[in-house]
Amino acid sequence: MPLLVMKFGGTSVADLARIKNAAAKVKREVERGYDVIVIVSAMSGKTNELVGWVEATSPLYDAREYDAVVSSGENVTAGLMALTLQEMDVPARSWQGWQVPIQTTSAHASARFIDIPRANIDAKFAEGFKVAVVAGFQGVSPEGRITTLGRGGSDTTAVAFAAAFSAERCDIYTDVDGVYTTDPRITDKARKLPKIAFEEMLELASLGAKVLQTRSVELAMRYNVRLRVLSSFEDTDENSGTLVCDEDEIMESKVVSGVAYSRDEAKMTLVTVEDRPGVASAIFGPLAEAGVNVDMIVQNISEKNYAGHAGAVTDMTFSVPTNQVARAKKAMEDAQAAGHIKYDDLNVDTDVAKVSVVGIGMRSHAGVAAKMFAALAAENVNIKVIATSEIKISVLIDRKYMELAVQALHDAFELDKAGA
Amino acid sequence: MPLLVMKFGGTSVADLARIKNAAAKVKREVERGYDVIVIVSAMSGKTNELVGWVEATSPLYDAREYDAVVSSGENVTAGLMALTLQEMDVPARSWQGWQVPIQTTSAHASARFIDIPRANIDAKFAEGFKVAVVAGFQGVSPEGRITTLGRGGSDTTAVAFAAAFSAERCDIYTDVDGVYTTDPRITDKARKLPKIAFEEMLELASLGAKVLQTRSVELAMRYNVRLRVLSSFEDTDENSGTLVCDEDEIMESKVVSGVAYSRDEAKMTLVTVEDRPGVASAIFGPLAEAGVNVDMIVQNISEKNYAGHAGAVTDMTFSVPTNQVARAKKAMEDAQAAGHIKYDDLNVDTDVAKVSVVGIGMRSHAGVAAKMFAALAAENVNIKVIATSEIKISVLIDRKYMELAVQALHDAFELDKAGA
Repeated sequence: MPLLVMKFGGTSVADLARIKNAAAKVKREVERGYDVIVIVSAMSGKTNELVGWVEATSPLYDAREYDAVVSSGENVTAGLMALTLQEMDVPARSWQGWQVPIQTTSAHASARFIDIPRANIDAKFAEGFKVAVVAGFQGVSPEGRITTLGRGGSDTTAVAFAAAFSAERCDIYTDVDGVYTTDPRITDKARKLPKIAFEEMLELASLGAKVLQTRSVELAMRYNVRLRVLSSFEDTDENSGTLVCDEDEIMESKVVSGVAYSRDEAKMTLVTVEDRPGVASAIFGPLAEAGVNVDMIVQNISEKNYAGHAGAVTDMTFSVPTNQVARAKKAMEDAQAAGHIKYDDLNVDTDVAKVSVVGIGMRSHAGVAAKMFAALAAENVNIKVIATSEIKISVLIDRKYMELAVQALHDAFELDKAGA
Repeated sequence: MPLLVMKFGGTSVADLARIKNAAAKVKREVERGYDVIVIVSAMSGKTNELVGWVEATSPLYDAREYDAVVSSGENVTAGLMALTLQEMDVPARSWQGWQVPIQTTSAHASARFIDIPRANIDAKFAEGFKVAVVAGFQGVSPEGRITTLGRGGSDTTAVAFAAAFSAERCDIYTDVDGVYTTDPRITDKARKLPKIAFEEMLELASLGAKVLQTRSVELAMRYNVRLRVLSSFEDTDENSGTLVCDEDEIMESKVVSGVAYSRDEAKMTLVTVEDRPGVASAIFGPLAEAGVNVDMIVQNISEKNYAGHAGAVTDMTFSVPTNQVARAKKAMEDAQAAGHIKYDDLNVDTDVAKVSVVGIGMRSHAGVAAKMFAALAAENVNIKVIATSEIKISVLIDRKYMELAVQALHDAFELDKAGA
């Protein structure tokens, strides 16, 4: 029997009417001949309520108890979804993490999968059940305690089940109808992509597109799980949404697939740092220890000596999320005070944004960067920092030009038009 | 290490402040040198919310899914209570039913205990944990599904743990401060009993005193678990509340310990039923099948034959809860139509109440019934039906005399005075 995994997020199961709507989508797949594993989130708002109680009770809470409390939201949805399916004459039952059992590490609140044994659920399919409704976001540790997976855990649960059960596809139902060439709020020329490669989706997710959680895309890529993102609030069929898949499945790929942006970036520059082997590690080690997520890094090698500096010096520029600036600053000042690094000044520019173009076609096409810089120059947008990967070019620019830059790049790469 | 079981009901853990208040009571027992097993209910209102969702989803719900959903309320409280205790520097952890594991039958929504193995919790006490916070009302079936115990299940969980762990006492914290000689709303002479025997508590519970659930008292009696009922909302010490215990522990017992009443009684009389061997079973069999809880039964044997009846006839009177009258009536009419019983008329009197006196002293004292009837006669209260057990005498009277009757009996047996 072919098998599908279908995942419904919090807004898709926010109340009984929406659970019914989601169940109807499940029933249609069963009627098409699939066995279905449904992964559910907590009804929207419920997890926040539970987290609020935990934090109010104990600011430095025991993560094992946090997990025991917070996981209950998904259990409720799983039972209600199973009941709703039964009402529609679909043989279904709910599964809590420990009943599968979904085996995870003991890293409470951010556990990782160890194994998802198929035996228990397979036995129920063999008995005639058509749907297994699994509480997402949770598992059980080797010690028998309940664990949760952290942010986006239900997406990750869905992909992990799709991999474990060799599902034909993993459908992620959410409140958007797919992945777009860019944010439709920025330009109405944004176009929904019928397909996108795992690598592109990963870059877009890490660049701030909120559709899928990075970890779930990584997992899908590793196990080659075909992921589909589609809307729970629209009528959907086998062509709806966006398929995230291996690039081999994408017949005609444009050089650039999408333009992403991130508003909450800050640029920090250590001015005239003493340059010596190991200086990068002396800078970024303390930042990592302080929990600062450094994104772009640019180093300008200086060729001459400056006054007051015995050896070579350099400027080191990096970008961090705006809300981590204070922490980053303190880490640098502490490192200077401890004598681990030596710099003249630390400049902070919190008025920047990051704009990126992403596309697997870049690998085989030259001139993408040149075209990008030309498009920005034509709009008089000054580029402050540039960083590139194999399938991505990102620039930091003044925040006030962000929308303009996104629109200009979307036009320059003709993303409103389908095809190669 | 001596061990206590402490149970907190829904109103005692209704919000974070009340959970904190309950936790303080637990901490005090730990400081006195006890290991403590805490049994918690869901925060008040939560179970009703969950039940409401289940019933709205599926009127004839799968009880296994009902249990999976409804049990989540207790899990939340258990985690929050463990966190609260940790904040107070009391080493505590939460236990869901399947983690203990609390083994029950597969009778979902009304499961019964099979076993409560001590090993897992004992191992944690040995590691230095002082408190095990157990989610009440739930267990796990031999099939690995979550079960719930039905009404009053958390009281029953508490008693079962007290028996399994040979607890010194099982303290039931609730919103009243003990068991009274009668309802204080009926007479301000009502007096709190320092002790009451299991048998008396059982009669009072089944007669409508809402303090403890019948099944938990039965279980306490069977395993000789000393039960204490006391208030979560008052300062309490080792003498607070009412101890429900073996009668051997009660030094000075009065003949009558309490006066109970039940407002929602109806009296039904089958008039001139053909009397033959098996007629009682032909009447009460169908009533039981229809789910009618028959309480008192009185049969008047008739010695002469009536017109139109070939053999002996009798009148059969019984009492049922008011809200089951329609169901009882239909069961009787169906039995008549099927030819299983034959009667001339079915009289229903829904305007009655039951008043009972209860006391283990009755066993060795004659004259209790006479004294009761005299007290009622002195107030011109007419008795419609009488039923007696070894330690109880119940009468049905017109409902309008109920308060008067309770007050008269409380006075007649001098229940406002302590001692023998």
